[in-house]
Amino acid sequence: MQTQTTLAHTTRRTLTAVSSRRLTLDNINPHVKAAKYAVRGEIATKAEEFRVRLAQGDKSLPFDSVIFANIGNPQQLDQKPITFFRQVLSLLENPVLLENPELLRTNFGYPQDVIDRAKVLLADVQSVGAYSHSQGAPVIRDSVAKFIEQRDGFPANPQDLYLTAGASSGVSTILNIICDGPAAGVLVPIPQYPLYTATLSLLDARCVPYLLDEQKAWGTDVNAIKENLSKAKAAGTDVRAIVVINPGNPTGASLSAEDIKSVLDVAAEERLVVIADEVYQTNVFTGEFISFKKRLRQLQQEVPGKYDNVELVSLHSVSKGMVGECGHRGGYFELVGFDPEVAAQIYKYVSIMLCPPVIGQCLVELMVNPPTEGEPSYELYQKEYNGIKDGLRSRAMALYEAFQKMEGVECQEPQGAMYLFPTINLPPKAIEAAAAEKRAADEFYCLQLLDATGICVVPGSGFGQKENTLHFRTTFLAPGTDWAQRIVKFHSEFMAKYK
Amino acid sequence: MQTQTTLAHTTRRTLTAVSSRRLTLDNINPHVKAAKYAVRGEIATKAEEFRVRLAQGDKSLPFDSVIFANIGNPQQLDQKPITFFRQVLSLLENPVLLENPELLRTNFGYPQDVIDRAKVLLADVQSVGAYSHSQGAPVIRDSVAKFIEQRDGFPANPQDLYLTAGASSGVSTILNIICDGPAAGVLVPIPQYPLYTATLSLLDARCVPYLLDEQKAWGTDVNAIKENLSKAKAAGTDVRAIVVINPGNPTGASLSAEDIKSVLDVAAEERLVVIADEVYQTNVFTGEFISFKKRLRQLQQEVPGKYDNVELVSLHSVSKGMVGECGHRGGYFELVGFDPEVAAQIYKYVSIMLCPPVIGQCLVELMVNPPTEGEPSYELYQKEYNGIKDGLRSRAMALYEAFQKMEGVECQEPQGAMYLFPTINLPPKAIEAAAAEKRAADEFYCLQLLDATGICVVPGSGFGQKENTLHFRTTFLAPGTDWAQRIVKFHSEFMAKYK
Repeated sequence: MQTQTTLAHTTRRTLTAVSSRRLTLDNINPHVKAAKYAVRGEIATKAEEFRVRLAQGDKSLPFDSVIFANIGNPQQLDQKPITFFRQVLSLLENPVLLENPELLRTNFGYPQDVIDRAKVLLADVQSVGAYSHSQGAPVIRDSVAKFIEQRDGFPANPQDLYLTAGASSGVSTILNIICDGPAAGVLVPIPQYPLYTATLSLLDARCVPYLLDEQKAWGTDVNAIKENLSKAKAAGTDVRAIVVINPGNPTGASLSAEDIKSVLDVAAEERLVVIADEVYQTNVFTGEFISFKKRLRQLQQEVPGKYDNVELVSLHSVSKGMVGECGHRGGYFELVGFDPEVAAQIYKYVSIMLCPPVIGQCLVELMVNPPTEGEPSYELYQKEYNGIKDGLRSRAMALYEAFQKMEGVECQEPQGAMYLFPTINLPPKAIEAAAAEKRAADEFYCLQLLDATGICVVPGSGFGQKENTLHFRTTFLAPGTDWAQRIVKFHSEFMAKYK
Repeated sequence: MQTQTTLAHTTRRTLTAVSSRRLTLDNINPHVKAAKYAVRGEIATKAEEFRVRLAQGDKSLPFDSVIFANIGNPQQLDQKPITFFRQVLSLLENPVLLENPELLRTNFGYPQDVIDRAKVLLADVQSVGAYSHSQGAPVIRDSVAKFIEQRDGFPANPQDLYLTAGASSGVSTILNIICDGPAAGVLVPIPQYPLYTATLSLLDARCVPYLLDEQKAWGTDVNAIKENLSKAKAAGTDVRAIVVINPGNPTGASLSAEDIKSVLDVAAEERLVVIADEVYQTNVFTGEFISFKKRLRQLQQEVPGKYDNVELVSLHSVSKGMVGECGHRGGYFELVGFDPEVAAQIYKYVSIMLCPPVIGQCLVELMVNPPTEGEPSYELYQKEYNGIKDGLRSRAMALYEAFQKMEGVECQEPQGAMYLFPTINLPPKAIEAAAAEKRAADEFYCLQLLDATGICVVPGSGFGQKENTLHFRTTFLAPGTDWAQRIVKFHSEFMAKYK
């Protein structure tokens, strides 16, 4: 009887698990299966398990907190939202509060410009609970256009702007339009933010990698671009676009005017659409951010004709910078030089998902149109904004200095974004031990780092890296500098163990 | 000189427009080009232009307001948000307000349960500006699981729940997983909400249509399903799933227990994944809503074995019902009976876009876990909820009665959702006039309706309809009943004109 039951149970389980389900790993969309996205992969999942165990009072771990340095998620860590933004959003969510402006001012310290701004936005969107225009609410797109004009010194047209649910959804839209089949290729920097390779996998299109030059502070190397472009063409790839992430993710590099020109030169000569991922445009420590749009317009004036037909998409977001509101999923992209018929297809494509989250759209407006001098919210806004910026810079420097003390670790000086991407030179024994576990050596290192310290970073292999080099990406968002010391200690023990 | 300048200008324009752009309508992703989405198509765009003209003081139009009856966008029209929801959301956006609960209560009338709920949600998500778990915040998924258990009388597991940016993004995710190439097919009801056909176009997969039975109040017709399934198989289509929209969009039908069983029978016999779009589950006027999950669990108890391997996805949203918060882009789907390895691929897929909007996730929690009897917000919540429900029903009936007076118009009695989908029998002369304009006859009718009355509806051809029949879809969200009379008057003039 026992045996029969067990057998019946086993047979049933086998049937269910193996043969009877309609969808299995072997017959679902192979392009989904092929896609890789390490930022939220195995290591991040394990870190989350550790966090839950600690929260449940587990005392068996060798650390008392998990540091999520794997993802640019500022408000999960130290960063407080900017007061002006959140005051306006609270009124948009409950406009009934606007019926008592006096009480808002006296009891809750809401300044008049907060109240005024909420009214302007509500007049445009009617309710943050209503669908907006699929391209985004008109008044918000007007504000974004003014912001771009002020930033670049060249005009922008609200008709060319598309508000998005974070920059990720914008990237997905653009790649969906560009990639017309398995021969389509897009030049992607290596290392890169894996959204690009993952989306190209989903679209069954080709990633044409070009290596960034670590020795030149992760700048673009125009020869690497041209060489890989030629190779790809020779292999039958119809290379249609080039992605540039500036400031860089995961590298943290901030591109010079010359670097940007060299990319635009290639784009003009080789007829490539430029996808400029500029979500870290305010996270710049050295020099100033130069947008691709501005550089393109300058070059169009300087060398009439040559750059006229360059098509450019520039993306921005509320997730990064000093805003750090990634949970709100707000962003936009601007089309420059696109065929209106293609733009109409982009509109149709985004309209299928109806509209980006309206409260996220409103946050885009607040980001691009913050309080100005003389307005009641200005002083606090400036203080908070600069406080966040200074904090990021000082933590970046502390981490950089810690890395400099670590044997076999080389790191470029922090320039921007939210990341450092050090090279780690691991001893042969560590590499062998990783191979024995069938793991990439940097993954092996990052898992051990997590197990020993509770610090979650992402191995370089998740972003792509030059052959025979190893890296990891860490954010510098977590508060304090204590955790940098945890890494130093782990690293020296790791190096000793595998010496 | 004049001629030369003009010529140069023309040449330059031609070059730019025709030959020099990298992306043209002829070389972008053909699947995007093929996708159709009429809900926000030409007629909706024209209606928006009319709205802008009226807002700018244009007096030349034969109407003084535009009625957007083309889209289920309740808060664009009459519907006010539910107070409890928005009070909580305002606190989530600005948690500083929670520091003065006494002032919130006395000056702004925030009940204690609002304050308590905001604290619970903030403890889980930390900040609505932070990325959450890609499947959605844990506490929110727990609430959804409890809601499903209470609704169906069968357990639900938070691990099987995925919060989404509205149901549309959930549908897109599921179809991306299911469709593995150009031979993959999905059974889609006709008429349908065009998200399904548009997404299948984008995925280069096949829509296998099955006609709903208008004469049986738009119920499912199991013979139609089987017949089309056989035809599709014979044509080499690998039919993998069946979509059911219940209550129906655009039909407004609410399916009986027997109808649901017949679909589950086909799914079990033919090994089809069931995609149950249940976003209108609270918009039911006659009978009660029965979820596919509940019916499946019942059948699994009643007939052991037969239904064990049915895979079901059930989708819900904050956009419809009495919530009507579509601008917040919140929703969820539940996987039932899925292979854990496939579920892991779904997780990876959604993680590429990081997470759904966190404030939208919180709204899902509030929708599924509203104030209960005895709690301070209960009474007002009930009053507002029932007020919206009653308003929808009475407007549906008013519109239905108006349609009954119209020559050549036949309409099923309102059962649910937010739509009526009447048949319009147009005179041959109207059909000829439409053909002369190269338009579908129902599109011709709807455009004339818009031009004459400012009322924007969607032609039946945007949803699919039985050959030689014509329909339009209208929401019954717009306030008042005056606009129903505008349709009656237009219709009688139209019929007279083309008699």
